[in-house]
Amino acid sequence: MLEQGSIIGILGGGQLARMLSVAASRIGYQTHIFDPNPNSPAFDVATSKTIGSFQDKDLLQKFAKEIDLVTFEFENIPNLALEQIENLVSIFPKKKALAISQDRIKEKEFFDNLKLKTAKYAPIDTFEDFSKAIIKVKIPSILKTRREGYDGKGQLLITKDTSKKEVKEHLLLGPCILESFINFNKELSVIIARDQSGQVVSFDPGENIHRAGILHTTIVPARIPKTVQIDLIIVAGKIVNALDYVGVLGVEIFLNHQNEIIVNEIAPRVHNSGHWTQNGCVIDQFEQHIRAISGRKLGSGERHSDVTMVNILGDEIEASLNISNGAMHLYGKKEVRKGRKMGHINYVSQRTL
Amino acid sequence: MLEQGSIIGILGGGQLARMLSVAASRIGYQTHIFDPNPNSPAFDVATSKTIGSFQDKDLLQKFAKEIDLVTFEFENIPNLALEQIENLVSIFPKKKALAISQDRIKEKEFFDNLKLKTAKYAPIDTFEDFSKAIIKVKIPSILKTRREGYDGKGQLLITKDTSKKEVKEHLLLGPCILESFINFNKELSVIIARDQSGQVVSFDPGENIHRAGILHTTIVPARIPKTVQIDLIIVAGKIVNALDYVGVLGVEIFLNHQNEIIVNEIAPRVHNSGHWTQNGCVIDQFEQHIRAISGRKLGSGERHSDVTMVNILGDEIEASLNISNGAMHLYGKKEVRKGRKMGHINYVSQRTL
Repeated sequence: MLEQGSIIGILGGGQLARMLSVAASRIGYQTHIFDPNPNSPAFDVATSKTIGSFQDKDLLQKFAKEIDLVTFEFENIPNLALEQIENLVSIFPKKKALAISQDRIKEKEFFDNLKLKTAKYAPIDTFEDFSKAIIKVKIPSILKTRREGYDGKGQLLITKDTSKKEVKEHLLLGPCILESFINFNKELSVIIARDQSGQVVSFDPGENIHRAGILHTTIVPARIPKTVQIDLIIVAGKIVNALDYVGVLGVEIFLNHQNEIIVNEIAPRVHNSGHWTQNGCVIDQFEQHIRAISGRKLGSGERHSDVTMVNILGDEIEASLNISNGAMHLYGKKEVRKGRKMGHINYVSQRTL
Repeated sequence: MLEQGSIIGILGGGQLARMLSVAASRIGYQTHIFDPNPNSPAFDVATSKTIGSFQDKDLLQKFAKEIDLVTFEFENIPNLALEQIENLVSIFPKKKALAISQDRIKEKEFFDNLKLKTAKYAPIDTFEDFSKAIIKVKIPSILKTRREGYDGKGQLLITKDTSKKEVKEHLLLGPCILESFINFNKELSVIIARDQSGQVVSFDPGENIHRAGILHTTIVPARIPKTVQIDLIIVAGKIVNALDYVGVLGVEIFLNHQNEIIVNEIAPRVHNSGHWTQNGCVIDQFEQHIRAISGRKLGSGERHSDVTMVNILGDEIEASLNISNGAMHLYGKKEVRKGRKMGHINYVSQRTL
């Protein structure tokens, strides 16, 4: 168990790091955040900060020497950055999960190996690849960059109206994957934790509603049959065990109209769709992650209340400030931009199911 | 309303400031903590810190100029410190509540004026005062220093076995008050908030159990009749209205065996017996305080769960680290001392009453 007062380093200083930092302090650790942005949200609640580039080898090494453990808040950390620090300090979650989640092809192959149903897919490097693949994958489908996409960025919906030019332009972004479009009934996610001894604790699955590719609302309990909820947790458990994972991981899942589970993607970190746990559980996803990586016993994943989590995007922040019947979690971001995640609100009600 | 990104200064950097700081960041503010102790618990989660003495006029003035608002985590702030900053920045809660709570005689007179029942008392400066007063106040009674007592410090229980020498020695601590000992059935507290427009929101009263003069456990709901709960809140409401109070205030109350309400003392700040709100309510006492002082609308005081809060004192911290069924709130204190408040745990269960 990481000793009280030890310093947990976090790569990335956004809202996830901000909430991880608070959770770490709550269970007796100090934090040190590394981020290039001097206005990083996490700096406000961290013990120490380093403002620097993820390309700055010397600074990364200095950072690594000052901390007792390191974790990250986003999966697209440059490999170069990890290489600078991996011999100096333990990194959790381990690199395997990162490598898989950074590459949509590897991710799909990983699901295939676990015999988990996922969308039909094909790797696309050239327009010729695309022309062949579209026959198998069919329309509607989505052309996504293999790497570095998030919140719907780097994605092109392919319909009968999509032009050759659009496809070719999209391919300029880099290697892609073509995925069949899932005509889903529900978008769901499971936030699950696995500790260093292999113990697994899951939170109840959440039902997610996206707007313009960005998560808008998570509803817990998800409005799906109880048996499906259990199956979802089993799928998530399979994934963290196969990865020999340590930490919290989010699994995004589609449920089709036949209640079939189709795994979409994994995020090797705390996840926006797990923010409801802050006010629905005694121990939230942030503390659960810190517990896992610090060698502590995981907390209970029990949910005491029903929760609807609503993201505050862009200028919705203004109207949100007067809310008094929900738990507000603002990220302290100075600049308001359209679609930017500024905070979220957890609306809590008595547990029904 | 204090603008997003504004800086809230806090005098004192202990665990209360630590939790206030997290709450402030949660609703979009930065924090700046002033404390002489370089290992102050609040520094870990604050945006900025000043390490300095409450006697250091220049440093206090510099601090005041860098913040948009100031509050405090303890009532025994030297008047000198407040005088340095009061013309530079708004202080909440206002000085009136501080002046009353800093002086046990003024506090009793304040209760008298509000026609609230309190213990019999008499001011004691000399042994002669004591000899006269003991006839009226009777034994058992408690001789307390008028100022600066907390957690049972500066208190002497007067029984038939107390010697003249003990009393005389106690009087060397400074001006005192003699209070009749209340043979109570329950020790209770009400945590109540009042905003700048005079709106009042109370949390449910807590039932407190002390050990060796230090709060050990708070149970919510208190095991008292519902009518008494309501009366307790009315008493607390009277107090904050009479003080024209802004912020969160704790009222400590005895209930005798006839279910009579006897007001013991007030604390013009967030209060240890209100820590249960962190996991029993959507908006906790810390956020409620920040909302009040920053001109925001108060949050709902509704309780969604039953909670038992247990303080972690001294070396109990070791055993606490393995707890996984309660919400742990550790203060990051480096030095473990007997009876020192190291953290607390909120045990949450389904709401019963």
